[in-house]
This record gives sequence, structure tokens and C-alpha cells, in this order.
Amino acid sequence: MKRIIPFSRMDHAVAVILYGVLLIAGQAQAQTDPLSSWNEGAAKQAIVQFVQTVTEKSNPNYVAPEDRIATFDQDGTLWVEHPLYTQAIFELDRVRALAKDHPEWQTAEPFKSVLAGDKAAMARFGKEDWERIIGATQTGMTTEAFREIVRQWLTTAKHPRFQRPFTELIYQPMLEIMSYLRANGFKTYIVTGGGQEFVRVYSNRVYGVAPEQVVGSSMATKYEYQDGKPVLMILPKEFLVSDRAGKPIGINLFIGKRPYAAFGNADGDREMLEWTGAGEGARLKMLVLHDDAEREYAYGPAGGQPDTTVGRFSEELFAEAKNKGWVVISMKKDWKVVFPFER
Amino acid sequence: MKRIIPFSRMDHAVAVILYGVLLIAGQAQAQTDPLSSWNEGAAKQAIVQFVQTVTEKSNPNYVAPEDRIATFDQDGTLWVEHPLYTQAIFELDRVRALAKDHPEWQTAEPFKSVLAGDKAAMARFGKEDWERIIGATQTGMTTEAFREIVRQWLTTAKHPRFQRPFTELIYQPMLEIMSYLRANGFKTYIVTGGGQEFVRVYSNRVYGVAPEQVVGSSMATKYEYQDGKPVLMILPKEFLVSDRAGKPIGINLFIGKRPYAAFGNADGDREMLEWTGAGEGARLKMLVLHDDAEREYAYGPAGGQPDTTVGRFSEELFAEAKNKGWVVISMKKDWKVVFPFER
Repeated sequence: MKRIIPFSRMDHAVAVILYGVLLIAGQAQAQTDPLSSWNEGAAKQAIVQFVQTVTEKSNPNYVAPEDRIATFDQDGTLWVEHPLYTQAIFELDRVRALAKDHPEWQTAEPFKSVLAGDKAAMARFGKEDWERIIGATQTGMTTEAFREIVRQWLTTAKHPRFQRPFTELIYQPMLEIMSYLRANGFKTYIVTGGGQEFVRVYSNRVYGVAPEQVVGSSMATKYEYQDGKPVLMILPKEFLVSDRAGKPIGINLFIGKRPYAAFGNADGDREMLEWTGAGEGARLKMLVLHDDAEREYAYGPAGGQPDTTVGRFSEELFAEAKNKGWVVISMKKDWKVVFPFER
Repeated sequence: MKRIIPFSRMDHAVAVILYGVLLIAGQAQAQTDPLSSWNEGAAKQAIVQFVQTVTEKSNPNYVAPEDRIATFDQDGTLWVEHPLYTQAIFELDRVRALAKDHPEWQTAEPFKSVLAGDKAAMARFGKEDWERIIGATQTGMTTEAFREIVRQWLTTAKHPRFQRPFTELIYQPMLEIMSYLRANGFKTYIVTGGGQEFVRVYSNRVYGVAPEQVVGSSMATKYEYQDGKPVLMILPKEFLVSDRAGKPIGINLFIGKRPYAAFGNADGDREMLEWTGAGEGARLKMLVLHDDAEREYAYGPAGGQPDTTVGRFSEELFAEAKNKGWVVISMKKDWKVVFPFER
């Protein structure tokens, strides 16, 4: 019994209405390009072709839905990372906000340089300086207290050049890839060198990525009690550093599956793309090249300032990408718009 | 335009058929009890009432779908843990399998006692002994090699009493809770003191829990190359111990959300239940009590052998559960069947 209501019994008017509805629906579907902010070209083509390959059941490289994992670096891949990583700007703001309770910072580095606004000194900060800043601004409090501080900061802080909240400085074309992959059964993960607790505060709202799908660098925590209630205290001790080889390590730890698609923009993403590419079948590996000083920044190897320490994309990585067929996305040529607010 | 086809235009026969279809569908639904292996009682009632509370939009304790997180201990909560944790049996089997390549084990503890089958000595093994066994049997190989060994072992190993594969010795009533919660929008996680890499091999097949929803104890890994291909080498170094306070720590690390429901059976689950219960609104906390020597084992505080070191459920935990309203599940009284194969 395929049709309960025989078509022949409907009157003509109803049939005409039904036909009209179907016609409009069909047109709407045809007009919606899931990657509408992408110019036609090799990058867009690589994405579409990859998705068609892994979702077409008859294709030898078909991938079962439960294995469709895509991982995205955040800084410089999903949002702006220049002139400085957003979380570093947050940390410097926190140093200034907490300075009144720490008179000793006026004379002790690295705090002294931060409080003096000495940009030349800050540019020379090494690992140990940042560890001290992180220890002073992001540890010694509960996970809940930290999240609330981040939440508050995000509502007021603005990017120095764009004068907009940092969470608006996300890349529209990358949001479209995420949605497109999710619509095709992929689970999208953020795998960031940035702080896991930091990114989880806004990941769902900004990227549609649930907190449990954010893998990032983390500090050790301690289970203890405050007023009889259990809390997790953030300790001044690194737990996982999710950068370079720490990315495949974090992916294996948190997901336990090898990604089929990985997106990065810098030397810190090299191992994630290599790990992804070492799997069998069709694997999409893409790198965002920042070559658009006008709309965003230019600091890539193909004509920018390749010696930046913030999101460095080295000549070596560029050569390896060419060599291994990793797709390099030119921000300037491949993206119709950079930010959602440009549309 | 709500109804394109006016009901009045359908002929009588079609209406009768439609009515019949709806009637049968309604009856089928009413007859399917999602917790059919549970006897009527306080435990079953607590589960059903909790699910109704958090899924009913008009309820003040309604929980949005993205926050519906449930965490389950594995050993003794989802499957049999006596006379010894399954993974410990695996490790002892591995010692025997690898002994021919390690003549020095014949005279070196703890291997000597394992190879001699000295149960009294093995019962006295301390943390350091087990660390040595774990180091010798589960590290110094790639994650992929380890998984393959586990996969192989599971196909042949049998439980000493039940003479069935360990993956068949899972608790039917707990599988029903998992399915029931998932059908109501929950994400179900395993949070085990056992090895994360070990459990991920079979979690999807056995419990319907994806590998990325298994949080467990883990060893550190190192990213390196074998024949030019990247691998993750398992190091003889603990990374996360997901037991006691390590459970809420692992939950925060991997999920970043507080569970609304948590299930355990032993002192090692105490903090997970406490952490769950410290959240606002309706939170379900349940403990499986092993009080059924006939169908499984009896080692709970309410009449068994409470001094077991395998899945110890102490008098203190029992008192705390009573005090805080954590629901204790009596295997003997609450479960119609224990294992799926009994049905």
C-alpha cells in the first residue's frame, strides 16, 4: 500500500498548489551553495570533491558516518591571531586588571614590561615569561571562576585594529566548511594550541562546536572543597600542550580516531596534517595562507613577513605542503569575504 | 494552509485503514518498556522520574539536550569485575604469552609469581607490581599495535567462572539505562579507571558508546616515525589516572560539562557521584550493589565480602549514599536478568 490517498481523487486545485510548493522548494535548494563565500578554484574544488568521495556509498573511499572526523586549528585558521593570539591579549589585560593587588609586579619581569606597555620587551618574551603570566592570570582559581572571567572579558574586549569583539573576527569561509562537513555527517573538532578551558567558553556559540569537541592545551587541576562543595582548582602546572606533536597526541587521547580532514595555518599544525594524511583512503589536508594585508594580515611564506613568531607558516612547511599535495588556501584569492560582518 | 488535502474528501475505507495503522502503532509503543529487565521498585522509579523531569520542557528542572550528559563507570557497573578486573586478566595473559622472550621473568617478581600461577602472591600485588606488569605488557608499542592485541585477545579469552567472552558479561539492565537515556537525548560516556585505549577497542560494539565518549586511565604517548610513517608510541609513564578524584578531573578535561546522571559501584566512583550531585537541578546518582552470589557475585557492604580490593564498596560509601539520597541498585532485587544471554 504505497499511496493511501489515490492521487486521482485530489481535485485539480490541490494538485496545482502541491506542484508549486515542490517547485519553490527545488529552486531554493539549487540556489544554496554551502560554500558561497568561496571563489571557484582548486581549494573549493578540493573540499567539495573530498566530501563527495567519502559520502558516496559506491566509492571505494567511502567513510562510515561514525568515522567522519574533522579537526580545525583555531588561531589563524578559524579566527584572527595577529597582532597577537587572542588569549595572549586576554592574559595581558588580566595582568593590568590584577596589578593593583600585586604591587611587586611594578618591579618584577615580565609583569613590569606589561604594565609599562613596553611592546619591544613583550615581543622578546620567551616561554618562561609567558608561563609566569599564565600562572599569575589563569591558575590558582576554580575552573568555574576562570570561565566566568573569560566570559566577562569577551563581552568588552576589542581587537586593536578591527575594533570589534574577538568572537566576530572569525572566518566566514571556514564556518562554511564546518557547516558543510557537519551537514555531511562529520563531527567537527577544534584542536588548538590555545587553552581548552578558554576556547570552550565560546566554542558552541561562535563555531557551533560543543565544548566536548574542543581539544586544547590544559593545566592540571586538583579536586578539592570550598565551603563543603567540590571544586576543580587550576594548578600552575601544564597538563597537555596541544601544539605540534601534541596535536596528534591530543587527537588520539580525546577522539581515539584518525581525522579524515584537518585544517591548519602554521608550523604548529604540521604534525596534525601529517597524522591525518598517514591514514588510508581520501584525507583532506588544508592550510590557510595569510596573504591579504588589506582585509586581514599577510605573514605567509609567499610574500609577507615569514619570520613572525605568531602563527609562523615557514618556507619548509610551504614546500612540504606542495610536495605532499596539502591544499594551501589563499585568503586573498580563495575567499570572497573574510568575516561574517562583511556580507 | 495547514491541511492541503481536506480530510472530508478521503473516502471512508481510507479513513478506517489510517485509524487502524495509528491504533497498532500506539499499542506497540505502550507495550515496549525501555527498562524491561528491571523489577518495579525505587531504583527503576528513580530512573524514569529523573528522565521525565529533565526532558519535560515545562519542568523547572528541564535540561537542554546539549547538557544531557550521563557518565558510567565500567568495571562492576557495566560488566563483571570479579574475580579480577578484565584488563588485569588480560595483562596476566600477556605476561604468559610474552614469557618465552623474557627468560629473566622466571626469577624476577612480579613476573615469577604470575608464571608460577601463585594466586596468593598475586593477591598481594601492590601498585608497583601492577605498574611493572603494565609497563611490560601495554607500553613500548604503538597505539595501533596495542589495539590489535586487545582485539585478538577478546576473541579467545573466557571468564573463568562463566566460560564466556568477557564482552558477553555485561549487565542487561545497565544497557537498558544507556539506551533509554540516549533515546531521551543524553550523550552516554564511560568514565573508567581502566585503560582508555583498552576500552575503546570494544566500547561501540558492546555498549554503543563511541570511542570518543570513553574517558579512562591513559599512558603518555610519543609521536615518532616507523619506516617513515608517523606512529604514537605508548610510553611507560602514566598520563591520567581516571579513578576517585581523577574521575571528575577526567570528566572536566574530556567533556567540560557536569554530568546530570552518574553510575558507579565502588569507592572509586565516589567523587564522580559527588561532583555530579554538586550541580544544580535534578541529578541522578546510582550505585550498583553486588549482592547476588548466585547469578553474579556478592561483595557489597550489605552482606558479602566487603574487604575485597576489587571494586570495593565500603560501609562508608554505603552510609554516604543513604545520607545523600544516592540510589543503591540491588542486583538481586532490582534486576530480572543480569546478562543479555539470560533472556
